[in-house]
Amino acid sequence: MVNETQHTCSASSSSRSDGGSSSGSESSKDNSRCSTPVLDADRHERLREKMRRRQDAGDKWFSLEFFPPRTANAAVNLISRFDRMGAGGPLFIDVTWHPAGDPGSDKETSSMIIANTAVNYCGLETILHMTCCNQTKDDITGHLQKAKRLGLKNIMALRGDPAGEEWEEEVDGFNYAVDLVKHIRNEFDDYFDICVAGYPKGHPEAESYEADLRHLKEKVFAGADFIITQLFFRPETFLKFMKDCQAIGITCPIIPGIFPIQGYHSLRQLVKLSKLEVPQEIKDVIEPIKDNDAAIRNYGVELAVSMCRELLDSGMVHGLHFYTLNREVATTEVLKRLGLWKEDPRRPLPWAVSAHPKRRVEDVRPIFWASRPKSYIYRTQEWDDFPNGRWGNSSSPAFGELKDYYLFYLKSKSPREELLKMWGEELTGEESVFEVFTCYITGEPNRNGYKVTCMPWNDDPLATETNLLKDQLEKVNRRGILTINSQPNINGKPSTDPIVGWGPSGGYVFQKAYLEFFTSSEIVTALLKVLKKYELRVNYHIVNVKGQNITNAPDLQPNAVTWGIFPGREIIQPTVVDPVSFLSWKDEAFALWIEQWAKLYEEESPSRMIIQYIHDNYYLVNLVDNDFPLENCLWQVVEDTFELLN
Amino acid sequence: MVNETQHTCSASSSSRSDGGSSSGSESSKDNSRCSTPVLDADRHERLREKMRRRQDAGDKWFSLEFFPPRTANAAVNLISRFDRMGAGGPLFIDVTWHPAGDPGSDKETSSMIIANTAVNYCGLETILHMTCCNQTKDDITGHLQKAKRLGLKNIMALRGDPAGEEWEEEVDGFNYAVDLVKHIRNEFDDYFDICVAGYPKGHPEAESYEADLRHLKEKVFAGADFIITQLFFRPETFLKFMKDCQAIGITCPIIPGIFPIQGYHSLRQLVKLSKLEVPQEIKDVIEPIKDNDAAIRNYGVELAVSMCRELLDSGMVHGLHFYTLNREVATTEVLKRLGLWKEDPRRPLPWAVSAHPKRRVEDVRPIFWASRPKSYIYRTQEWDDFPNGRWGNSSSPAFGELKDYYLFYLKSKSPREELLKMWGEELTGEESVFEVFTCYITGEPNRNGYKVTCMPWNDDPLATETNLLKDQLEKVNRRGILTINSQPNINGKPSTDPIVGWGPSGGYVFQKAYLEFFTSSEIVTALLKVLKKYELRVNYHIVNVKGQNITNAPDLQPNAVTWGIFPGREIIQPTVVDPVSFLSWKDEAFALWIEQWAKLYEEESPSRMIIQYIHDNYYLVNLVDNDFPLENCLWQVVEDTFELLN
Repeated sequence: MVNETQHTCSASSSSRSDGGSSSGSESSKDNSRCSTPVLDADRHERLREKMRRRQDAGDKWFSLEFFPPRTANAAVNLISRFDRMGAGGPLFIDVTWHPAGDPGSDKETSSMIIANTAVNYCGLETILHMTCCNQTKDDITGHLQKAKRLGLKNIMALRGDPAGEEWEEEVDGFNYAVDLVKHIRNEFDDYFDICVAGYPKGHPEAESYEADLRHLKEKVFAGADFIITQLFFRPETFLKFMKDCQAIGITCPIIPGIFPIQGYHSLRQLVKLSKLEVPQEIKDVIEPIKDNDAAIRNYGVELAVSMCRELLDSGMVHGLHFYTLNREVATTEVLKRLGLWKEDPRRPLPWAVSAHPKRRVEDVRPIFWASRPKSYIYRTQEWDDFPNGRWGNSSSPAFGELKDYYLFYLKSKSPREELLKMWGEELTGEESVFEVFTCYITGEPNRNGYKVTCMPWNDDPLATETNLLKDQLEKVNRRGILTINSQPNINGKPSTDPIVGWGPSGGYVFQKAYLEFFTSSEIVTALLKVLKKYELRVNYHIVNVKGQNITNAPDLQPNAVTWGIFPGREIIQPTVVDPVSFLSWKDEAFALWIEQWAKLYEEESPSRMIIQYIHDNYYLVNLVDNDFPLENCLWQVVEDTFELLN
Repeated sequence: MVNETQHTCSASSSSRSDGGSSSGSESSKDNSRCSTPVLDADRHERLREKMRRRQDAGDKWFSLEFFPPRTANAAVNLISRFDRMGAGGPLFIDVTWHPAGDPGSDKETSSMIIANTAVNYCGLETILHMTCCNQTKDDITGHLQKAKRLGLKNIMALRGDPAGEEWEEEVDGFNYAVDLVKHIRNEFDDYFDICVAGYPKGHPEAESYEADLRHLKEKVFAGADFIITQLFFRPETFLKFMKDCQAIGITCPIIPGIFPIQGYHSLRQLVKLSKLEVPQEIKDVIEPIKDNDAAIRNYGVELAVSMCRELLDSGMVHGLHFYTLNREVATTEVLKRLGLWKEDPRRPLPWAVSAHPKRRVEDVRPIFWASRPKSYIYRTQEWDDFPNGRWGNSSSPAFGELKDYYLFYLKSKSPREELLKMWGEELTGEESVFEVFTCYITGEPNRNGYKVTCMPWNDDPLATETNLLKDQLEKVNRRGILTINSQPNINGKPSTDPIVGWGPSGGYVFQKAYLEFFTSSEIVTALLKVLKKYELRVNYHIVNVKGQNITNAPDLQPNAVTWGIFPGREIIQPTVVDPVSFLSWKDEAFALWIEQWAKLYEEESPSRMIIQYIHDNYYLVNLVDNDFPLENCLWQVVEDTFELLN
């Protein structure tokens, strides 16, 4: 691509201009010195722009609809579903608005907070539904302001269901979705992208199909950016609807809502709510197998796949919207069969990027939170700006405290009974703790036959990258070097490498070897003697719960441990070992022993006292091998330490 | 080194502190997020701290004294002497104050401006002398304010010579150096490091040696940080003086002033001025050889070396101060024989760092000014802050214009006649220009038997690093690809590499291959066709004097082309190819054709018209090969271009 530009930049150059138009007086505020390094256009584009870009590129996409959960436990599960389904690469997700569930509140289960979590903690582009019926303008404005404050950028504007049976228009109130669209545009200008609902068969309460189309046109002309349709059962229903829309001048994107049938009862309920009729040919298949969930789901998947294929093949459809009913299997299956599920979407950075607009420029984080990105986001949510390019001497605003609410994110996904099975009903000494760590690394069942699939510091099984270090990790954990974070050294692998790659293609990624672990003061004493031999090569930070801190980091400077070199870019260095943040991380890392593990046991019980002893007496250690082109020496450091102890 | 720190950083961490003293409430302003990357303590320390550190480390050092020149030409020469002698690694240089020469003025030859040049453009720690005799407090304050504004940080406080023969103390005026010391401390607190003069034989006007020692003590107690002595001829003179000083309580560093005898007449003049007596044993040697300059200089070197050795061996002397008389040979010879001259001092960054305090954090620059660092410093002197860590999208303040005064730095060191011999008395066409470029690269004499040792874009012969590319450069220059800047690709060489290394030891340095040249529009047309094949690998910027600009740089982002990875540090990326600055550089690069070359010839002469034609019609091109681990493809790009043209 050749851009021929006539003095595009003359504004920022006061030097002689021997000709050329000096038109470009574009303000430089938007691209100030510290906001370069963004790797993916995705982080800067609005949803409607992303949609347009994907359409222009002939790149098909999908989106996923969820409803808010009823309990805090269900919320934890839904969030991990967001992570798993987010990995498939949806263009966005949306969260429905439940007027009965206090949807704008700060409850963990409210629509507002679930959408907030999706955007900020899961990094998903998110649409928050909002209904206007029976609400005052002030209520609505309050909700919208809050949504904006939380970093939400997209609203699905709906009427909602009237409260009583005999609903009447309120003068000056919100009677239709179009009123809400107008209100958003009046009060918030172009800040939000607005989506509205379309009814391929016409809204059940509309006078006629044609009248409903005219209402839809009003909503679009009032400022909606795109349309998502109600579910339908036959592709031709949607295609006719789309042509009819276009015929009356609706030109914005219209996204078909897909409902993979997942069970007899959920279908019946949905049909009842939406006042749709299930076509006879579907009823004929379903009725005979109505008690066989698996059979119905298989049929539902088949049906959805064939309908989606027909829609995509029509050339009129660029994206598909899935009504998931908060379930994973059927939708994922349909997407995989359609080839829309991206098993390993390219990572713009080696950690999960938040979708909050304030964090757009963020491109460097301490490595400590690698397995706890949500915690990092939570604890830094009050920061006014985020490090980019360079972490710098850590004069960053303080990390958030470990408050009660925070424990929501401190909570394990697994219930107590399961944790006890994994981590031991009864501990007999420090060695039983070593065993738990070792089983987590090896993936082998523990002495009671249970696999250890998570740890207080890591909700998920071992990362593929960490698997590269498995044998060595096993050896050291057995002997009481209790590892919680590590990465191998990498000397210039392609940025497209399936395991360690990140960033745009054509680049090279690098890493310094990193190892972080808890260990006893006896081992620390030996380790410090050994480290003297490695003084120029290995940087270390060793700290106990009281904050006693031993380090050889020069001037408390951060050490870049992951970086990438890309065509036509400055260097990106997304993870650092920062001595100052390490002290905030240590509070969290030590707290997890107590909050997640010790508290599984009765007070005063031996098991609890063992964990408490470790918490009180062990050190948290991190080691960096600076000599990334050579073989990782950290295993030798540990080996030497054990030898010294023998 | 193990630093055991109790919660050093608890100030910037609001997390739970389960104990440990939270003493460290040190303000974080001084080490704000954007000021990390400094590689050498040198850039942050004051002169007196550097002195102390070197002394503590048992690291001997030297310093050099110069006087201001009389003419602008001599100033150009003196500045290049600063560069050459600066390469030997002096701890500082000092510039004398010549009351007769308008020393505080803005003249290129004033003491003030020469010291300014040494600090800002040559990156040398510098002491400016200042005399107070016959001056008002306002005059002095004005000079000091100006010095501070220019980034000077050290003052040698002297009385100076009274104007008339019969000098009398002025009431309320500056009568002695001690008055100046007090004045500086009163008005500027601790901003300046202050040096005062010591007289090993006592000041010639002092009542007695003892009285003079008391005066010296007064100066030190008034706030002087160290002492430089007048010259002397016997080591025992200095050592006795030093002991006498210590005996009366003078504990600051005392630096012996060394005067290598360089000629009969200069010695006589100096002796007359300083009212010193040359010892008989020296007179006995010199008188018989007084007309043999070389013999006297050899003797002077011998004498200085043996005296210096004796001083250093005494264990009382850590640094030596040389009175150079603005000459190089003798002092350099003495230093080399003493082993104090550092042939290749470690480079903190791959370009010459300015010593101005404002530029302390600067650690990234565009590559374009690689051979013209003084010009870059001049054109950016008005910037309020300097890029560090990341260049960023170039919203940097504007580059300074190419004004008249600037031509002082645009001026070649060589006189017109010499330039004509190198670049051609008479040009016969573009080919004769190609020849000049080719001879500069090869180092071979041109057709008239003269070597081309400089070019308008480069005052010095080819850099060692560029020599690595010599054969290829020769080939392409012969055919009209007129190269002015280039670097090879480097995939991780040790930071101590003698040719491409920089920064602290234990690191690795990297480069992307870079090539910058002028060439005809015919070649540019072919080149653009060839570049299509290299679209993803090679970034290019092509611009003519009118500012017509062709590039494939994404979003006008800078491309890092030199970077280094060091133990315990963030990544350093000191040079970038910045599309926006390139347009400011292009003005300068094109202007040099006219200012330095075309103007050598008569107006309307064919030679001048040839250079003018090139200036008006050629393009300035830069190419970056992003694939630094592979073989540099830029030569293939050029080869393909020539092939396409054939």
